[in-house]
Amino acid sequence: MDLASILGLLIAFVMIAGSVMLSGGSLTSYWDTPALLMVGGGTLGAVIICFSTRSLLRLPRVLLKAFYNRPVNQVELVREMVRLAEVARREGLLALEPRLATIDDPFMRLGVQMAVDGTRPEIIEEILKTEMDAVALRHRDGKKMVDQIGRFGPAFGMIGTLLGLITMLGNLTDPSAIGSGMAVALITTLYGAVLSNAMFLPFSEKLAAISKQEMIGREIVLRGVLAIQQGENPRIVEQKLSIFLPAGMRASSEVF
Amino acid sequence: MDLASILGLLIAFVMIAGSVMLSGGSLTSYWDTPALLMVGGGTLGAVIICFSTRSLLRLPRVLLKAFYNRPVNQVELVREMVRLAEVARREGLLALEPRLATIDDPFMRLGVQMAVDGTRPEIIEEILKTEMDAVALRHRDGKKMVDQIGRFGPAFGMIGTLLGLITMLGNLTDPSAIGSGMAVALITTLYGAVLSNAMFLPFSEKLAAISKQEMIGREIVLRGVLAIQQGENPRIVEQKLSIFLPAGMRASSEVF
Amino acid sequence: MDLASILGLLIAFVMIAGSVMLSGGSLTSYWDTPALLMVGGGTLGAVIICFSTRSLLRLPRVLLKAFYNRPVNQVELVREMVRLAEVARREGLLALEPRLATIDDPFMRLGVQMAVDGTRPEIIEEILKTEMDAVALRHRDGKKMVDQIGRFGPAFGMIGTLLGLITMLGNLTDPSAIGSGMAVALITTLYGAVLSNAMFLPFSEKLAAISKQEMIGREIVLRGVLAIQQGENPRIVEQKLSIFLPAGMRASSEVF
Amino acid sequence: MDLASILGLLIAFVMIAGSVMLSGGSLTSYWDTPALLMVGGGTLGAVIICFSTRSLLRLPRVLLKAFYNRPVNQVELVREMVRLAEVARREGLLALEPRLATIDDPFMRLGVQMAVDGTRPEIIEEILKTEMDAVALRHRDGKKMVDQIGRFGPAFGMIGTLLGLITMLGNLTDPSAIGSGMAVALITTLYGAVLSNAMFLPFSEKLAAISKQEMIGREIVLRGVLAIQQGENPRIVEQKLSIFLPAGMRASSEVF
Amino acid sequence: MDLASILGLLIAFVMIAGSVMLSGGSLTSYWDTPALLMVGGGTLGAVIICFSTRSLLRLPRVLLKAFYNRPVNQVELVREMVRLAEVARREGLLALEPRLATIDDPFMRLGVQMAVDGTRPEIIEEILKTEMDAVALRHRDGKKMVDQIGRFGPAFGMIGTLLGLITMLGNLTDPSAIGSGMAVALITTLYGAVLSNAMFLPFSEKLAAISKQEMIGREIVLRGVLAIQQGENPRIVEQKLSIFLPAGMRASSEVF
Repeated sequence: MDLASILGLLIAFVMIAGSVMLSGGSLTSYWDTPALLMVGGGTLGAVIICFSTRSLLRLPRVLLKAFYNRPVNQVELVREMVRLAEVARREGLLALEPRLATIDDPFMRLGVQMAVDGTRPEIIEEILKTEMDAVALRHRDGKKMVDQIGRFGPAFGMIGTLLGLITMLGNLTDPSAIGSGMAVALITTLYGAVLSNAMFLPFSEKLAAISKQEMIGREIVLRGVLAIQQGENPRIVEQKLSIFLPAGMRASSEVF
Repeated sequence: MDLASILGLLIAFVMIAGSVMLSGGSLTSYWDTPALLMVGGGTLGAVIICFSTRSLLRLPRVLLKAFYNRPVNQVELVREMVRLAEVARREGLLALEPRLATIDDPFMRLGVQMAVDGTRPEIIEEILKTEMDAVALRHRDGKKMVDQIGRFGPAFGMIGTLLGLITMLGNLTDPSAIGSGMAVALITTLYGAVLSNAMFLPFSEKLAAISKQEMIGREIVLRGVLAIQQGENPRIVEQKLSIFLPAGMRASSEVF
Repeated sequence: MDLASILGLLIAFVMIAGSVMLSGGSLTSYWDTPALLMVGGGTLGAVIICFSTRSLLRLPRVLLKAFYNRPVNQVELVREMVRLAEVARREGLLALEPRLATIDDPFMRLGVQMAVDGTRPEIIEEILKTEMDAVALRHRDGKKMVDQIGRFGPAFGMIGTLLGLITMLGNLTDPSAIGSGMAVALITTLYGAVLSNAMFLPFSEKLAAISKQEMIGREIVLRGVLAIQQGENPRIVEQKLSIFLPAGMRASSEVF
Repeated sequence: MDLASILGLLIAFVMIAGSVMLSGGSLTSYWDTPALLMVGGGTLGAVIICFSTRSLLRLPRVLLKAFYNRPVNQVELVREMVRLAEVARREGLLALEPRLATIDDPFMRLGVQMAVDGTRPEIIEEILKTEMDAVALRHRDGKKMVDQIGRFGPAFGMIGTLLGLITMLGNLTDPSAIGSGMAVALITTLYGAVLSNAMFLPFSEKLAAISKQEMIGREIVLRGVLAIQQGENPRIVEQKLSIFLPAGMRASSEVF
Repeated sequence: MDLASILGLLIAFVMIAGSVMLSGGSLTSYWDTPALLMVGGGTLGAVIICFSTRSLLRLPRVLLKAFYNRPVNQVELVREMVRLAEVARREGLLALEPRLATIDDPFMRLGVQMAVDGTRPEIIEEILKTEMDAVALRHRDGKKMVDQIGRFGPAFGMIGTLLGLITMLGNLTDPSAIGSGMAVALITTLYGAVLSNAMFLPFSEKLAAISKQEMIGREIVLRGVLAIQQGENPRIVEQKLSIFLPAGMRASSEVF
């Protein structure tokens, strides 16, 4: 559960709603079903054209990830690798085999399994790197879909406003209707701007941050598995892996 | 037949039309022949200037490709390469010769033909790579034309609106005509925005996705042909080629 | 004579004019000398500041190139190199000397001359490459001037509109003059948009396409001269040079 | 204390206020609490979504850094390294040990400590480089947060204006209220533009400049420590380190 | 004295003024002191925040450089290097010593001095390259300041217009004042657009062009000094250095 994403979303919408009510507006006047169809449907259509079906089917999971992501605990990862290194050092690599079942992370399990099996280090590195590349590619694809929604949303908002303006301007028989016609026309632009700036552009940044964290976590596992297989001293393993930890978690001296 | 492209286009336009009708507008009021001439003709003119005649003649086929593209079935490609590897392993490379006629994909046929002919691996790789580079270049050129349409469309939409506004504002004798004059003027901006955002920008993304898939397919064929020629074990061939398959088609453990 | 550029320009302007007349406007209402001075003069001034005098003096020739460029016939280039290779193979390199005078392209003449003179291959390659780099640099400089016109045009169009609006709004004694004042103010924005989108931005793309073609042509000559000097078989020369030909001119199997 | 940042901020706001008062406006008419909630709260929400909690907690310190940063005195750094080099040259590396306590900069202390301890040069370089990379990464992350505030501020300003316009246009019963309604609506756009252009975009540039200075300072320390450990002549140390000083502090001959 | 910069600035402003007067406007109506304070002061404030004091102090000299720059005469540079090469070849390197005082360019003097002193070629190259890197960095910094003025100018123009519109719309008691209020509000946008497009963006391009010329000149000197020290034949020196001359100054065959 990523509280920051939920909190951020809440703050943005509560602040918007609060400022509307403080200045005497009414929230119901911003609801317009045709406008929602226009912006949501148009953006959906454009995004469906852009990507392959296989990519699109992953979109809901990608979006959920911005909220339900369990952040990688890198300090814990380093500790776990050090524990495994201690066992391997004391009792030999094969002593890791019974522990395999207790490893949750499939990536770490795969790495340790290969180390236990005596796979050559180059092969372990190649297989884990290929897996990491595939994950990085999938992350980029997911982020790109979210980016495109953030890009097409405002575009279809503008299209909706143009459609509304043209209808309104073409029927100027009743001048008193100009204001409300224009208000309705502007709602699609509003929807597009909110969709993009309060939701999908920030989601895209979050996904990029999550992806970076995951990649660092996998790098720690990869380096750790290789060090364990070479039977290195657990203290050296810890030192080597700590390099990947963010500055605040090491004995760092300075904060920007 | 790329159903996603057609579905996306349908959704976008049905949603736009639906939201117009839901909010009491009439679709016929958005049809304006001079506006269509302006945006379509201006964009066409600009794109004709931009590219060489040879490139332009490919534009219709490029656009059709976004709809009629038969996606490369990479899993099937790997399977076919493995089948060929089994034959070659069991009966020798020459046993592939009678099978050449049954290979549809001309790129794969060329590669297998050269392997059967005993062409040296470096030469095979160079020839197939050159062919792939040429295809990639052609894909980039095609995408660039579609991009330029998506870029000049809104520009000529704005030019049309300026022309309309200037005419309208210069003849303000009848104030009641302001509204309808402005409505007509805005139609070109609408056309430009729809042309770009509901059609050509998404088409361009689709073409990029299709190109990436094709390139991965060709990489699979290239690697497969080289492995077959070296008489590698079909299981090894499969393992090597599976690296190119998207994560979901291998035994992958995680989804973004 | 580059018919596509002229045709594209014609289409763009005829379509614009046609749509204006179809919708009942009059073309003469879009002529405004002060607006032309503003956009043309301002853009000219900005571009004069941007570049050195030496670069600016080349601008007219750069622009003409978008229209009067004789496209490089790459197939013919390959054929000519093959013919020279045949002569050199049959009668020796020195037999090329009397043919030098019949070679129009100075770049090819320079290359063949050096081959006949027995200049070492590395030196030939270095000299021709340096020449190609200088041409590429000149092409980039030329394109950049055209780009800047396409960028400053709309900016000075907006400056003109602001000037017009300020004058108009400051003299609102006669409300009936608002419309025509605004119409005049908008004309500079129109000029800037047309200058940029119907002319200079497409010209810039065309110049980039022409430059790419020329560079490929010179690469063919460079590779051909080196192959001829090494006394390679004319068939091999043809095969080597054909790699540089666009896909449609070789026995290619697929179109994007 | 970075006087330039404070001076710049003062100049920008005093000039804005002065020009408002000179043209007869009143500053109090630009205060609007709901508008502040909208732009500040919306931007805050978006930024909270974008980054991890750990990054966000550093934001206040990052912002303060633009004001309270003590610029790295690179000339003094070089002098200090030269002084240490003189001691080391005269009395041996171990003579630096009692001086360690007097070194303020923890990065320099770490480097000298390792030199005194006899750590191998490659290890010193690797550890200090890793530390520098971590700092550079932290600086980039900090700058990115400031950039995002500068990017989302105007977006939420536009959202606020759209909300205000829609409310105002939907209640056009009293035409005399149009003006004041529109004025209020525009205030959010104003806040977004000021937030971005007078504050966060310049802050981001300042942070980049500070980061560059710090990195040069650390490079000087790194090079200096390595030279000291190798027992180089203090004059050579000075010459080597002076390369990193900005041109104006060396005997440079020309100013752009 | 860079006549092109002055001529360009003159053309831009004379054309703007001419077109205003041709269309019956009055230049005095575009002068507004508070608007100037707003755009000039706001931009100044933002730029002061962005850069370090040391960089800012160089800004006036950077701007003057766009006007008073004496272009590097590359042909003359090559000739001077060839003359020095002739002396060195005929009378030995030491014969260059009395000539040192006659060399104006401090960079060339430094290079020749080192050659005369018998400094090793690698050291000469390293020192001159370091000097060139420092100059290039300084040029980039200078250009960046000019770029930022060109970027913040329009932003503060927009802020001024928003301030003016809000004041004007908040005091709609006198409808006849709307026009003049709006006119005044738009003046800041005008100032920002002129500041950016007629001045600082072109200045930035000019500075980039000047920097490129200077860098080529220094490259010629560097190559020349190294060739002289190696005692190369003056004809070879000339040939080697001519590669750096722009195409039009060598026997080039083609113009873009």
